[in-house]
Amino acid sequence: MTSPTRQRSKILYGGDYNPEQWGEETWSDDYTAFSEASIDTLTLNVFAWSHLQPAEDTFDFTRLDRSIEQAVAHGKKIVLATATGALPPWLAHQYPEVTRVDFEGRKHVYGQRHNHCPSSPVFARLSKDLAGRIAERYAGTEGLIAWHIGNEYGGACYCSQCAAGFRVWLRERYGSLDRLNDAWNSMFWSHLFTDFEEIEPPNALSEHWKGPNHTAFQGITLDYLRFMSDAMLKNYRTERDAIRDHDPDTPATTNFMGLFRPIDYHRWAEDLDFVSWDNYPPGQQQFPRMALAHDLMRGLKGGQPFWVMEQTPTITASRDVNPVKRPGVLRAWSWQSVAHGADAVLYFQMRQSKGACEKYHGAVLDHAGRRDTRAFKEVAELGGEFETVGKELTGGRTPARTALVFDWDSWWLAESTDGFNRHVKYPDVVLRYYEALWQANIDVDVVASDADLSGYDLVVAPLLYVLKGSIAQRLEQVVERGGSVVANFWSGRADEDGNAHLMDAPGPLSSMMGVRVEETDSAHPGETNPVELRTSTNSPTFSDAELVMELLVPEGAEVMGTYQSDFYSGRAAVTKNAHPSGGEAWYVGTDLDLSGVSWVLREAAGSHDLVGPYQDYPDLELCVRVVGLQRFSFVINHSSEARSISIHTAGTDLLTGRRFVKGEKVGMDSQAVLVVREE
Amino acid sequence: MTSPTRQRSKILYGGDYNPEQWGEETWSDDYTAFSEASIDTLTLNVFAWSHLQPAEDTFDFTRLDRSIEQAVAHGKKIVLATATGALPPWLAHQYPEVTRVDFEGRKHVYGQRHNHCPSSPVFARLSKDLAGRIAERYAGTEGLIAWHIGNEYGGACYCSQCAAGFRVWLRERYGSLDRLNDAWNSMFWSHLFTDFEEIEPPNALSEHWKGPNHTAFQGITLDYLRFMSDAMLKNYRTERDAIRDHDPDTPATTNFMGLFRPIDYHRWAEDLDFVSWDNYPPGQQQFPRMALAHDLMRGLKGGQPFWVMEQTPTITASRDVNPVKRPGVLRAWSWQSVAHGADAVLYFQMRQSKGACEKYHGAVLDHAGRRDTRAFKEVAELGGEFETVGKELTGGRTPARTALVFDWDSWWLAESTDGFNRHVKYPDVVLRYYEALWQANIDVDVVASDADLSGYDLVVAPLLYVLKGSIAQRLEQVVERGGSVVANFWSGRADEDGNAHLMDAPGPLSSMMGVRVEETDSAHPGETNPVELRTSTNSPTFSDAELVMELLVPEGAEVMGTYQSDFYSGRAAVTKNAHPSGGEAWYVGTDLDLSGVSWVLREAAGSHDLVGPYQDYPDLELCVRVVGLQRFSFVINHSSEARSISIHTAGTDLLTGRRFVKGEKVGMDSQAVLVVREE
Amino acid sequence: MTSPTRQRSKILYGGDYNPEQWGEETWSDDYTAFSEASIDTLTLNVFAWSHLQPAEDTFDFTRLDRSIEQAVAHGKKIVLATATGALPPWLAHQYPEVTRVDFEGRKHVYGQRHNHCPSSPVFARLSKDLAGRIAERYAGTEGLIAWHIGNEYGGACYCSQCAAGFRVWLRERYGSLDRLNDAWNSMFWSHLFTDFEEIEPPNALSEHWKGPNHTAFQGITLDYLRFMSDAMLKNYRTERDAIRDHDPDTPATTNFMGLFRPIDYHRWAEDLDFVSWDNYPPGQQQFPRMALAHDLMRGLKGGQPFWVMEQTPTITASRDVNPVKRPGVLRAWSWQSVAHGADAVLYFQMRQSKGACEKYHGAVLDHAGRRDTRAFKEVAELGGEFETVGKELTGGRTPARTALVFDWDSWWLAESTDGFNRHVKYPDVVLRYYEALWQANIDVDVVASDADLSGYDLVVAPLLYVLKGSIAQRLEQVVERGGSVVANFWSGRADEDGNAHLMDAPGPLSSMMGVRVEETDSAHPGETNPVELRTSTNSPTFSDAELVMELLVPEGAEVMGTYQSDFYSGRAAVTKNAHPSGGEAWYVGTDLDLSGVSWVLREAAGSHDLVGPYQDYPDLELCVRVVGLQRFSFVINHSSEARSISIHTAGTDLLTGRRFVKGEKVGMDSQAVLVVREE
Repeated sequence: MTSPTRQRSKILYGGDYNPEQWGEETWSDDYTAFSEASIDTLTLNVFAWSHLQPAEDTFDFTRLDRSIEQAVAHGKKIVLATATGALPPWLAHQYPEVTRVDFEGRKHVYGQRHNHCPSSPVFARLSKDLAGRIAERYAGTEGLIAWHIGNEYGGACYCSQCAAGFRVWLRERYGSLDRLNDAWNSMFWSHLFTDFEEIEPPNALSEHWKGPNHTAFQGITLDYLRFMSDAMLKNYRTERDAIRDHDPDTPATTNFMGLFRPIDYHRWAEDLDFVSWDNYPPGQQQFPRMALAHDLMRGLKGGQPFWVMEQTPTITASRDVNPVKRPGVLRAWSWQSVAHGADAVLYFQMRQSKGACEKYHGAVLDHAGRRDTRAFKEVAELGGEFETVGKELTGGRTPARTALVFDWDSWWLAESTDGFNRHVKYPDVVLRYYEALWQANIDVDVVASDADLSGYDLVVAPLLYVLKGSIAQRLEQVVERGGSVVANFWSGRADEDGNAHLMDAPGPLSSMMGVRVEETDSAHPGETNPVELRTSTNSPTFSDAELVMELLVPEGAEVMGTYQSDFYSGRAAVTKNAHPSGGEAWYVGTDLDLSGVSWVLREAAGSHDLVGPYQDYPDLELCVRVVGLQRFSFVINHSSEARSISIHTAGTDLLTGRRFVKGEKVGMDSQAVLVVREE
Repeated sequence: MTSPTRQRSKILYGGDYNPEQWGEETWSDDYTAFSEASIDTLTLNVFAWSHLQPAEDTFDFTRLDRSIEQAVAHGKKIVLATATGALPPWLAHQYPEVTRVDFEGRKHVYGQRHNHCPSSPVFARLSKDLAGRIAERYAGTEGLIAWHIGNEYGGACYCSQCAAGFRVWLRERYGSLDRLNDAWNSMFWSHLFTDFEEIEPPNALSEHWKGPNHTAFQGITLDYLRFMSDAMLKNYRTERDAIRDHDPDTPATTNFMGLFRPIDYHRWAEDLDFVSWDNYPPGQQQFPRMALAHDLMRGLKGGQPFWVMEQTPTITASRDVNPVKRPGVLRAWSWQSVAHGADAVLYFQMRQSKGACEKYHGAVLDHAGRRDTRAFKEVAELGGEFETVGKELTGGRTPARTALVFDWDSWWLAESTDGFNRHVKYPDVVLRYYEALWQANIDVDVVASDADLSGYDLVVAPLLYVLKGSIAQRLEQVVERGGSVVANFWSGRADEDGNAHLMDAPGPLSSMMGVRVEETDSAHPGETNPVELRTSTNSPTFSDAELVMELLVPEGAEVMGTYQSDFYSGRAAVTKNAHPSGGEAWYVGTDLDLSGVSWVLREAAGSHDLVGPYQDYPDLELCVRVVGLQRFSFVINHSSEARSISIHTAGTDLLTGRRFVKGEKVGMDSQAVLVVREE
Repeated sequence: MTSPTRQRSKILYGGDYNPEQWGEETWSDDYTAFSEASIDTLTLNVFAWSHLQPAEDTFDFTRLDRSIEQAVAHGKKIVLATATGALPPWLAHQYPEVTRVDFEGRKHVYGQRHNHCPSSPVFARLSKDLAGRIAERYAGTEGLIAWHIGNEYGGACYCSQCAAGFRVWLRERYGSLDRLNDAWNSMFWSHLFTDFEEIEPPNALSEHWKGPNHTAFQGITLDYLRFMSDAMLKNYRTERDAIRDHDPDTPATTNFMGLFRPIDYHRWAEDLDFVSWDNYPPGQQQFPRMALAHDLMRGLKGGQPFWVMEQTPTITASRDVNPVKRPGVLRAWSWQSVAHGADAVLYFQMRQSKGACEKYHGAVLDHAGRRDTRAFKEVAELGGEFETVGKELTGGRTPARTALVFDWDSWWLAESTDGFNRHVKYPDVVLRYYEALWQANIDVDVVASDADLSGYDLVVAPLLYVLKGSIAQRLEQVVERGGSVVANFWSGRADEDGNAHLMDAPGPLSSMMGVRVEETDSAHPGETNPVELRTSTNSPTFSDAELVMELLVPEGAEVMGTYQSDFYSGRAAVTKNAHPSGGEAWYVGTDLDLSGVSWVLREAAGSHDLVGPYQDYPDLELCVRVVGLQRFSFVINHSSEARSISIHTAGTDLLTGRRFVKGEKVGMDSQAVLVVREE
């Protein structure tokens, strides 16, 4: 197979194109616009099933042939989809079992997209057949650079086919009912299963008493989430394998969705030849969150470059309120994705649909096909930059010395845990730790809990509720070799089954941390307990504990932070356990606010000289990529204010050609971007 | 048929009476009370099916005979219902298919009211039979003045009978699947239908992803709303036709519900001999909204008088909080309905039920049957006024020179549109424009988008999302003959199928307006952008843009309002395009607040001398009716404060007999009413 | 049968113990801990069905034998459960009809607990069989002190088995359809039933239009609540009778849940040999609410001592936010339960589960089995107190001269009533009256509406919406013999069917109260109307009317409070009707705030010398118990502040041995408890 991570000649630029929605009379206008905007890459065929196969035994590739001919004729690179992102109506009508049963137990009929039961044999057969036919027909097409399988996999199904699949999956996982009953603690509430057939999918009609997070048995719910993620992965593999029969080389991917809860992307990553994802941040000030998502996506395949498969030029269509991107934002966010490892920057979509639910979703060309809109002009300007600048940036790596551990099992369990505080949201806690690192200009690799941690000076493991495999030992090893580890509340509470470790919290992390949790108090949103943070050398600072307050008993660790109110005023909230190697293990026993987390992480990072030069500039991002031996610094001013900075390195800004002396004052407008080739 | 709009001898007064709920021993007390309150009209038999027909082959008219005998004996006018507002239990038990499937896909069993599937053949057969039997038996009854068919038609059903009916309706509408696929833009998301049988009703189990407004395919949803409205109309027609076999003359109606979304009353109006509606405003300060609803109802049949079929003397029962009407409010609101065209003012109900969900709904007589309550006394006082005053007022017309275009398709589509702002509510936007006219004492006809606009000086078309038929041309003609047109954001976005016009917004209105929309920004509730409004002669004024901000590019129009903040500060928000005829086309590109809308409309109305004398008195209503050649001015002080006004006309107040000189100071208490026969 | 209320030798102490969830290696540690904490009572076998009976024809008592052997060997008292709190998986799989259909009409499959259809014949057969086998095997076990049947009965089912059961229940209740149609006022909305088979359970698919409180027919809904309560009682009786075949003596109970809406505990009480309940207050400041619940539970069986069957040592697991009990709170609340009549103080649970939804629910022993936690130490300290102090306190009675009438029918109807105000919550209104009494140190018996009221000086009947049987006469008798009665808004509105009395409100209470309600106004939460309260001798005081404002017309009563705003400013809000006997009937026509209710109740209680010595100390509780001839005063400082009190009686504090002179200053820390043996 062609290496999907070979260095491309430039950053790919373009996106989803659905020419079949318009008459061919518009096509030449479209290609004129693509040229004007330096668009070189088109994703075709994503939702085409119903016209490719209008009946089970009828195939019609006329439209797709024409689309591809045009793209080839215009010298475009092609990302070809397998067209299975939505079922055709006849399929659901002919095979009613192919649609889903939802969490409420309701059987759905035909509608929407991403609408197939992942356990359906009919879907497997027909999607495999279609993917194979497409691959057979178009393998070897000039410009074909990737296969796009399915689309934005997600959701869940609870039908009887899935129930049967779940039971098979459980047999494979547990081997015996005894082991399963132990994993699920079935002795509780009379749940000892005596036959796999007794097991039902956990939803509103069985174990859940209020939505997806309120379950009587976490073990069942956790396993169903894993099963559903695996069932969809099987769908992906089925189509991927069908393609491989005809095209062993062209890399395959599907578009992920960043911080997306339903699917454990770590379980999927090895099956993708490269990672791609759709960047639709839920708001206008989400640049740290986008950075986290980029780093998570990059981390899925060990730091290899990824693609932004979709972003919107202007507005997203699906939110309650959909503001336009402000001037310069599209460019700044696009460069941010490159800074974090993107080799492709693609849009949904080229031309705005005339009807259905995305008719106002942003597009390169609006309903009038104008090329004098702000949106089009910004798209074209950025396209021009990628023509001239992108060449030297592709195929790079991020030289991070800091790792952040991200774990879907911990996400699923922490948010479905009865007993403490339902307001704790895994991505919010992780993002707070990430944002503190981001503000300190610290490059971060976001890794799975089974990752090799040996290359990192600092490992941050926020809300690592579940300890799987050797993660506890590998964290200890970081400290033993002089590195720093930071963990926080609820860490180490559960084993891989989601059951409590029958020992003090933080479980297997306790000895490394030199601390144990005696009690876990909880507070409502808005109720805070001040925490005094202090080192022996600095004057104390105060921040707020929220939601969860663990009362810590130091057993070797030094107390670095103490609660200031309630009956546990003066008790330890934050501790540091120093290792003879110089390594440090920090434990933060509460949901500390951003200022407190920043204090902890800057302390922890400080001893490894990780904190960057712009740590005092709010919303100024610094990100480093290395291509071969060359370092590039990306500096982006996300603030609505202009900034004047002392540049941290000598070098040349690729975008303007301007050369900087180190320490030189550089003015940066709102949304300004520097791409500095360091000297 | 007797003309339903002939001039009656007085305003009808009375309402729903269900004597069968009590022993006959209460009846004579009831009639004594009716006499005391000058009640002359009784609506009988609305929910009587279960006692009229206790089994499929058993009919028992004994109770109804007695009720009618009593009413006739007491000389009352009778409005006789067909008794089909709720199914009898045996019917649902014997024919389970007659009950509905709801939006969530749940099959309902027997319960509540308005509970039949509109596509049910069984319902059609049995309701037709019952209506026919009633008409046969009671046609020609002395005092019978109207047939009341069904009751408050509404809701929706999604059962397989409706699915089949929908497919028939679609075949009739579209003829071919090609045309249907085009109308629904089915190429999007792989929805090309290859057989009508594949089409499912759009609900939570098919195209809707979050409630009735979040649909993947607006086209399907729009057509289902139209179909459901038509299916219920068919129910109405079935009963109406059954009556006509026995009584060709007595007019028939059903009770509408004002600003009621589920049914497009414009599609129904021609089938009603006169319009009647139930006035239950959702709050105590809803007089402009009630005025809008009255005008909408009056407009359904070209300005003919209508009936208030129901209102409550005291409290409504169905809200979370149900305050009593304050002293004088019942009278003021009743006179308001007459001012807007009501020839009948009726209550629900005569005597309070002893049980079930309306046992505390207001009634003329309470559980104790008292005639010394405030409610009864107010009812009786008003009845007395209608005895003495009403005679000269019936059969009038409203001499409006202003039209407001109201369109159910625009309502349905604007609120189910992805992509901009889900907080926009069609009736709220329409009401704001109406209220600005109302405050300026401008009489308004509320008309459908296919109405003849040739008689109006000012046409206001708020949120006219859909342009159907020749509406764009008819609006242009208004301007061409020197009239003024006012439209606002999102207008002209969609064609009759709900698809985007493939051109600049506001689509076919653009050239008349001399403006195009380049971008559409959205804001959360509470976020505002100040708009400066100015003419060449006046000092500028400021109001707030909310929710939607279109960035306008004038193409001939004059800029009348500009945004004052964000990146589009200084860009056009409001424009006016002057026509050589003197006509003007105003475009308001944002959801302007009431003060801003008032500014625009007073500018637009000012050039036609439409603004009235009390425009500076908050909550003081002025409304004109013309009977023959005689003008009557209704002046109502809805404010909780007393006002002193300079009366705008010489004339005589019918209620007091007081004669006014024009300009004379007249004190008006809170809730005071003048009915001035102008000189 | 052994009298369940015989005086025990001490307060029972212990709780739920599920040793089968751990290996036997932990058991000896557990018993060591029990000894250390003076735990003498263990509840076994609550959720054991699935291991006792792994298949329909297979029974395995090995584990339970071992558990019981251990308990006996360690000399513990045993509360033995029938193990039917949750179905085993095989049962639901083999007999799908045994699981429930919910309010939404959804058939549930296996999951959670309390998951059987109460009308299921299969459940009746198998639960009876299991309870019988357990009783047969373990009757006579040394230390067996009680049978614990089922667990926390509650919820509801709407399946066809329940529908059939409901029809049988209705036939028994009403005898004829005519009587039923009258009770339900079926003439309204065409609901005349002609066959019992036509009747469907009232839920979201039939009579309910928005959740359990919004019903078209209150009568059906009310009767279904009664039926469901009775159906579960039948489940209880089935198991109880099966036990009685083998053990006629040992008392039986089930654990109630205090202010629990779904079950009318008054209908159950005579079938329990003693009352027990689970005390999980929904917040940290709920001591008056807990006191009310204790008194309600005590009142179920005429004042006999009851058990606290469950409480948590630290946190409850099921809330969104679950804070730990603050230091001293466990002790103070436990003593509060004894003060109100508890003879047993038991925990859920002895050892924390390792998995499933209660893995963080508080337990005597945490996951690490520590005995040095604050929780364990507090448990052990309290256990020690019960060893030394409890002996003299068991078997007592509360010498209340005040009764508060509590009525489930009123609860159900008041909260499902259309027409006034949906924000009125029965327990909140009752609690406000109770709290006012509690703050005034007034001992209260909470009694059913059919209770003997002849022993009380003051009877408070808050929100007694329904008047059943002779309650109106018995309240009148209180006044006639010189006692005081206090009632408030909506009282006396309905008869036993829930239908309105066809007379002035407060219906049959009107003449005693000397007042009638002319209008009932409603207000949104937060809208208030000031009420001036005054007597002839005192200066006036002001408090707030909320939610409901009845406009009262005195017909003999004296006006004690008047509204101060709105159109009814100056009209009566509170009245007092004096009887020649000296008795007084107070009527409070609004939802008065706590200060106003306190004013009324202190006026009413004052004339009977009921107000206690600490009425001015916020959150200081005084409660009296009498054992034989000896009075004990419990004084508990629930405040977070220390208080210094003048002790109201000479006596000796059992907890410290300190002797007090009457009037002596006694300092009480936060959470301090005195148990004073009065002299």
